[in-house]
Amino acid sequence: MAYAALAEQYQQQVMDKLPLSSLLPRATLDALPPGSDVSGLPESCGLLSAKQLEITGLDATELLARIATKEFSSVEVVTAFGIRTAIAHQVTCCLTDFFIDEAIAAAQELDAYLARTGKTRGPLHGLPISAKDQVELIGKITSLGFTSLHSTAKPATSNAQLAQILIDAGAVFFNHTTLPQSIMHLECNSFLWGRTLLPFNTSLSAGGSSGGEGAVLGMRGAPLGLGTDIGGSVRSPAANNGLYGLRPTASRVPNAGVRTYVPGRDSILGIVGPLCHSARDIELFMSVVLSSDAKPWRRDPSLLEMPWRVGRMGGWQEGGRRLRVGVMWHDGEVRPVRGVERALKGAVEKLRKSGEVEVVDFEPWKTREGWDLIRQLYFPDGGRRIHQLTDESEVEEPLDPLTQWLLAEAGPPVRELSIHELWELNTRREAYRKGYQAHWFSQAIDVLLCPVAPYPAPPHGEAKWWAYTSQFNLVDYPAIAFPSGLTVDQELDAITPDDAAAYVPLSEDDQLVHDGYHPKKYANAPISLQLVAMRCHDEELMDALVKIEGILKREE
Amino acid sequence: MAYAALAEQYQQQVMDKLPLSSLLPRATLDALPPGSDVSGLPESCGLLSAKQLEITGLDATELLARIATKEFSSVEVVTAFGIRTAIAHQVTCCLTDFFIDEAIAAAQELDAYLARTGKTRGPLHGLPISAKDQVELIGKITSLGFTSLHSTAKPATSNAQLAQILIDAGAVFFNHTTLPQSIMHLECNSFLWGRTLLPFNTSLSAGGSSGGEGAVLGMRGAPLGLGTDIGGSVRSPAANNGLYGLRPTASRVPNAGVRTYVPGRDSILGIVGPLCHSARDIELFMSVVLSSDAKPWRRDPSLLEMPWRVGRMGGWQEGGRRLRVGVMWHDGEVRPVRGVERALKGAVEKLRKSGEVEVVDFEPWKTREGWDLIRQLYFPDGGRRIHQLTDESEVEEPLDPLTQWLLAEAGPPVRELSIHELWELNTRREAYRKGYQAHWFSQAIDVLLCPVAPYPAPPHGEAKWWAYTSQFNLVDYPAIAFPSGLTVDQELDAITPDDAAAYVPLSEDDQLVHDGYHPKKYANAPISLQLVAMRCHDEELMDALVKIEGILKREE
Repeated sequence: MAYAALAEQYQQQVMDKLPLSSLLPRATLDALPPGSDVSGLPESCGLLSAKQLEITGLDATELLARIATKEFSSVEVVTAFGIRTAIAHQVTCCLTDFFIDEAIAAAQELDAYLARTGKTRGPLHGLPISAKDQVELIGKITSLGFTSLHSTAKPATSNAQLAQILIDAGAVFFNHTTLPQSIMHLECNSFLWGRTLLPFNTSLSAGGSSGGEGAVLGMRGAPLGLGTDIGGSVRSPAANNGLYGLRPTASRVPNAGVRTYVPGRDSILGIVGPLCHSARDIELFMSVVLSSDAKPWRRDPSLLEMPWRVGRMGGWQEGGRRLRVGVMWHDGEVRPVRGVERALKGAVEKLRKSGEVEVVDFEPWKTREGWDLIRQLYFPDGGRRIHQLTDESEVEEPLDPLTQWLLAEAGPPVRELSIHELWELNTRREAYRKGYQAHWFSQAIDVLLCPVAPYPAPPHGEAKWWAYTSQFNLVDYPAIAFPSGLTVDQELDAITPDDAAAYVPLSEDDQLVHDGYHPKKYANAPISLQLVAMRCHDEELMDALVKIEGILKREE
Repeated sequence: MAYAALAEQYQQQVMDKLPLSSLLPRATLDALPPGSDVSGLPESCGLLSAKQLEITGLDATELLARIATKEFSSVEVVTAFGIRTAIAHQVTCCLTDFFIDEAIAAAQELDAYLARTGKTRGPLHGLPISAKDQVELIGKITSLGFTSLHSTAKPATSNAQLAQILIDAGAVFFNHTTLPQSIMHLECNSFLWGRTLLPFNTSLSAGGSSGGEGAVLGMRGAPLGLGTDIGGSVRSPAANNGLYGLRPTASRVPNAGVRTYVPGRDSILGIVGPLCHSARDIELFMSVVLSSDAKPWRRDPSLLEMPWRVGRMGGWQEGGRRLRVGVMWHDGEVRPVRGVERALKGAVEKLRKSGEVEVVDFEPWKTREGWDLIRQLYFPDGGRRIHQLTDESEVEEPLDPLTQWLLAEAGPPVRELSIHELWELNTRREAYRKGYQAHWFSQAIDVLLCPVAPYPAPPHGEAKWWAYTSQFNLVDYPAIAFPSGLTVDQELDAITPDDAAAYVPLSEDDQLVHDGYHPKKYANAPISLQLVAMRCHDEELMDALVKIEGILKREE
């Protein structure tokens, strides 16, 4: 059986679920050539009311406050975001499922509850949340981006543990979003769902693997989204779309019921993390999920019994000394392109000027070794499972070029390991983690500021340098992508002849990025940065981000 | 090359290191038939002074207090325990290395420091600690019980992280102790070192795999010892010898530099744990190792950043309700023999009478399934590594019958897995852990009281039922063996004709234990019990044990 007919059918099923009131005219769609900025369409298309535009412009914290005071009803909020997401799908291809009617029904119940009791159901009362396909929701299909799995998928009979916690806190789910074949690209393209586009420039990648979340949130189709991250898959779409995206320390946020096609592969743990529009929304999410009400570790003993702790983890929080921020200008292998460098320089300059934090340069550490190691740890079966689900499956789905690249060309080809070889690799992983931590201490920093990738959202098919994100998966450090507030600037980010003459490549990969660089290629792309803290110091990370953003956003 | 000549040579090397002042007369040794109680020899042999007997009769907490006040010098303490351990070795075969001269030199430095400064070096100032062969100590060989490894071993160039923490706190190492071939028996027999005997009845097993520690501590040759436990290997020797032996939650006590022949095999984590003579010594050990001075997680990021917390983990500690103790009378597969049952009944009766704790029966849960699962997880390579180190090695060491039994007869024969099969097994492990925890909550208990094994120290070669201990390795719950204060009683523990008539086997294994039972077989064996708490609730476990022992030891 060929995959194509099935995929077309499945994609049409999603289109059929979009409400009529959200459909853009054919003419509008036809007038959007590749490279369009479609992020303003929700404002310009006339399908959303002024109030709906106001609602969809707010972050979760603000929205929840206004729902609680009945300025907005839950139905209004869910409806506004639902329509906006439906619009987003038509121009970015970000959905795998859409069930706004059920969401509105849930919102009605919440409104009735609030009216009846005068109280909210919980801290997320009425908040619509977007969810990557992997997050199981009762009655919905999860198919992991494989046509073969979609063709045999059964509706889930229970909610993912995380989804249930959020629902119990008052949240409302209304969609499932796209992910790439294998869920192992910093891109979002699959034969099942097609390619997800960046709202700000449709020639660029929405990021991945949680690319659907990136596009939905980038279009402000939801105040909060759930992605997964094993090599950068929350941070990449967050960065590409100018969002906040946290990769928490593993074994904190519950991932039971967040499906994977490689259950039991535990050499590197994937995590679930939030994407949203503000740092405070990340803190809200984490404090609800890891609250003493939710106690997720009681249902899942693989989780750390570690509630979200407020303040005072690092010495700097206790006063007496300043926050020490390390700056990694590049990872030793691939330098960031001009725009990213400019954003980092600008931030560092402001931080230094403020005098409120100490800023020190941070030496990169064994980036290439880390990449070769984590890549083999991703595929100790040599990619066998992926082949079983694609070219060896009944629907004969081909391998995406990026899947092929990752398995065979991104370093030494991966191959199926014997048990003893896996043990050896696990041992190397432990040694790497120890070495990295010793390096971290030698630099005497609290948090690390660095790029999220060498480039802003890259053109489709070009996201081939993972190390800025995957290194922190390898060492299991919490890391957050956050917007610098800048976008690529055609003048400021141009390479001057002097720059070109002075260029010395760090590596072949560096040369590749350098040679392919032109600011035009990245037109309109948001530029993001990354902040990292030590394992289990997620709270310190967020406190530091708040501190840093407080300085960066201050008017001079 | 045959192993036998090598092993004889290595064993003689240990004997040659015993000080002349510790050697028992040939006649004394010849007068000890199998089944002897040699535990009183240190008192009766005349080699130890009255003060040395007093010193070696104390627990670590008391010793440290008396060293700190200069009632005893460190040299006196180290010498006394050293001689006592040397005596122990001659009658129980518990050492793989002995270096009392170096220990005395270290103790001299400690004494000089105390004299000079008036202060102790740290909280363990002058405390001799016994260490299983696996614990790396500078200049010493670690060979894991394999003749092949011993023949090629190089002296360690650094101390195990744990050893270094203890040394920094003032402790003194003076020996290495025996372990069985493969380190995977609840017994202690190897072709390299021979068989370790139980001090209380040399026909019985000292326990394993940390059997050398069991015998050394059972003979009071050390106030504290370091064992390792992946299926019961701290608790079994502790139980057989009437000691306290803690299996902490994994990733708390540092195990870097505690060698294994299967590095990187992380489906089930082995742990290091203390054996000693009192509950308060366990707390002392844990609080020193997990102190904010030691911060072991800084050097080893695989460890949880979780200092030893004092009090108030469980609701019962905060007052308002009583401690809830679950009692598992048997594991659903193999009933404990009379003595063990008697000890458990006696304890439960006292606890109930006291009215200070709530006692409820605890249903056993999927014991057999857990055993089959963890056994395959021990050997995802089908035991290949063990074969490489024994019958396939240059020294051609045979397989011990218990090694053979564990690989091939203790359930379905283990075999080398493919990566996908390993993932499936890991997935089953996670499901088992979740199921166990749900079961635990359904019984609404704080801690679980149960046997450590179906029998007290069994005859050599008969320790074939692991599930009372290994189940808690599988679910990663902290568990401690502690003495009931009773020993096997030939009258009270005899099976009456009525008992025999009423007997209905729970399983084939139960039948085997039942048919082989006679109190004579276990003459003089100490009887121990086990207390268990939830993952990471090590502190609550110890608080509960103190509470429970306070009741059990109270005069009526």
